[in-house]
Amino acid sequence: MTWTLARRADRLNPSTIREILKITERPGIISLAGGLPSADTFPVEAMREATARVLADTRTDGSPGSPAREALQYAASEGYGPLREWVAGEMAGHGLKADASQVLITTGSQQGLDLVAKVLVDPGSTVAAESPTYLGALQAFAPYEPRFTAVDGDDEGPLPEALARARTQHDARFAYLLPNFQNPSGRCVGAERRRQLVQAAAEVGLPIVEDNPYGELWFDAPPPAPLAAAAGVGAQGGAVYLGSFSKVLAPGLRLGYVIAPPALFPKLLQAKQAADLHTPGFNQRVVHEVIKSGFLRDHVPTIRQRYKAQRDAMATALAREMPPGCRWNAPAGGMFFWVELPGGLDATALLPKAVEAGMAFVPGATFFPEAPRANTLRLSFVTVPPERIDQGVTLLARVLAAELH
Amino acid sequence: MTWTLARRADRLNPSTIREILKITERPGIISLAGGLPSADTFPVEAMREATARVLADTRTDGSPGSPAREALQYAASEGYGPLREWVAGEMAGHGLKADASQVLITTGSQQGLDLVAKVLVDPGSTVAAESPTYLGALQAFAPYEPRFTAVDGDDEGPLPEALARARTQHDARFAYLLPNFQNPSGRCVGAERRRQLVQAAAEVGLPIVEDNPYGELWFDAPPPAPLAAAAGVGAQGGAVYLGSFSKVLAPGLRLGYVIAPPALFPKLLQAKQAADLHTPGFNQRVVHEVIKSGFLRDHVPTIRQRYKAQRDAMATALAREMPPGCRWNAPAGGMFFWVELPGGLDATALLPKAVEAGMAFVPGATFFPEAPRANTLRLSFVTVPPERIDQGVTLLARVLAAELH
Repeated sequence: MTWTLARRADRLNPSTIREILKITERPGIISLAGGLPSADTFPVEAMREATARVLADTRTDGSPGSPAREALQYAASEGYGPLREWVAGEMAGHGLKADASQVLITTGSQQGLDLVAKVLVDPGSTVAAESPTYLGALQAFAPYEPRFTAVDGDDEGPLPEALARARTQHDARFAYLLPNFQNPSGRCVGAERRRQLVQAAAEVGLPIVEDNPYGELWFDAPPPAPLAAAAGVGAQGGAVYLGSFSKVLAPGLRLGYVIAPPALFPKLLQAKQAADLHTPGFNQRVVHEVIKSGFLRDHVPTIRQRYKAQRDAMATALAREMPPGCRWNAPAGGMFFWVELPGGLDATALLPKAVEAGMAFVPGATFFPEAPRANTLRLSFVTVPPERIDQGVTLLARVLAAELH
Repeated sequence: MTWTLARRADRLNPSTIREILKITERPGIISLAGGLPSADTFPVEAMREATARVLADTRTDGSPGSPAREALQYAASEGYGPLREWVAGEMAGHGLKADASQVLITTGSQQGLDLVAKVLVDPGSTVAAESPTYLGALQAFAPYEPRFTAVDGDDEGPLPEALARARTQHDARFAYLLPNFQNPSGRCVGAERRRQLVQAAAEVGLPIVEDNPYGELWFDAPPPAPLAAAAGVGAQGGAVYLGSFSKVLAPGLRLGYVIAPPALFPKLLQAKQAADLHTPGFNQRVVHEVIKSGFLRDHVPTIRQRYKAQRDAMATALAREMPPGCRWNAPAGGMFFWVELPGGLDATALLPKAVEAGMAFVPGATFFPEAPRANTLRLSFVTVPPERIDQGVTLLARVLAAELH
């Protein structure tokens, strides 16, 4: 039997990172390659208590119905009402005004990326993205067959004039932007640059799809208000906003959300329904039980503290060990350092040598929407404890030094 | 801001059933419209125990690692290994030989439909489907912009020559078939017809996408082996098989699976990764904990017994109440009766009158891939207890009788 594949299947390919991670899961390798949050931060006890409440036979207030049986039944495609309300309330605290009716609960924010592309991307249409940007977004968008155009930036963030050009020169349908401690660059866009970006996008009529998985993981001060707060998600809104519970609670529950203007919401909802009917109601209720009374206010600072110490360990090791000609910025939050090697080096070619030496990183080339830069790599500081981070960076520096001499 | 929608968004539309269900959730209405399994069948106690084991800090056998932290971490896109093994073993018992490496765990079998279409459907390509067929599949396929061609059938199932014509005349990419107690018709295809269908498909090189959410819900005897058992899912296999835990455990966990030939599996896997990275590992482990030691062997018969009694109640009421000229078959399993009204009647036009009388059904027209028949409707017998089924059918019959006189 010969199966005829859709043309878009050509755009589905094995993830480079996945293949790398398989190699680097070998025992003894210090992997700074992963993008996984530290499992030590997962609030297991709170999850246990919440799960027990969700799976109860009767309500504590004596009202009718079985919480367990409702949690295990089919549910609305929009998501669990109280969780949607919570998200709307939380975002109001960040300056983003949205009604709960604009919140769509998704099976991880990855699904939000898939749905946005399903509704907005035609084959051959253009999507603008930072350079580098989140690989998983490029993978989610690719099967809808867009062309990608890179938005140039500097250390402060994407350049407003480059963002405008994505529309005026390349007719981009939308710009996909991660202003907070971006994966992979760690970059956080300041308030003034955000203002300029939103203005530039509005002037040329370019919608913004803002992705914010890392915004809560700040080390010294919270990031400025989201782009979507200024661009708006109301009737005339110019932004869609994606959030996630993966980095502040646990990714294994697969819970994220999309906040969209009323003009766009029904199509995203119908795409969601077609894709998996609804996000597991059980998971939504468990997470709502965990967070509804302010749990994150105490919990997230413990993650910040841990990640900050590990960021410091990596910064110290990099400063001490790395050979001249390498460049990096210590991120003010998130999970990643982005390292630029001297021009002649190819991180992909270096990876086998690093693995042989006992450490692993992710080559940066895979994160570029176009024109990959071979002399870049990503290091995660969250999955490995400080002393192993130090060892890993030391091993990397030795491989680089050997290569440079 | 004007958002430019993808062309495929035109194919995303509000679900008729959803809109109907909203109306029929009014208190006092006897709804035979829903497609929900009975929440009374959900094994809440087993779920509680399984969840406690999944969220344990340490393993009972003393081996290292925290079950809870592994369940809450990112996981493989393929799915949880032991659950994939369980599915492969279970299917072997149904005559379908597949390796666990061919099992992809999905976020409900609805996601399996989305992934299959993402990988196999080009705009303008043809998909063959039974007439009527599962509405959710039509909705999952539609955004990929296929043309649908209907496979004619009789009470025994789709006609082999009609299936062949889907390929020879319409160049269908695949045929989507539900041989077991189909939603909405309740039809179960016999062994001999299955043999003929598989042979007809093989002769013209037409792949089969087989969907089996209801196969375990048989009342007197299990259905014959799946089409995929004869068509094969091996290297030269002509079938993809979709299964679900929604009807034998609980739908709120959103757990299904796809079994695919090795030639197709990698593309489905990459589509899965792009769509939501992976199905919640927590849910996969809870379900595996529930079922791994034979739980379903005792549990599923209790569902069969309950649904059979309700099927009998509906059959009795229909035979007693329905006016002449109506036609239906008592299903031998599953959840639905399919009723054909006298030719002149339009079930969609009748629905408001039925709701006013105090009951609801789903008009059949929405289930047709092409050429909808207005004089059809679907009745569910699983969500409402026998005495309410009797009342609901009596109310429906009165509305029909008034219309016919």
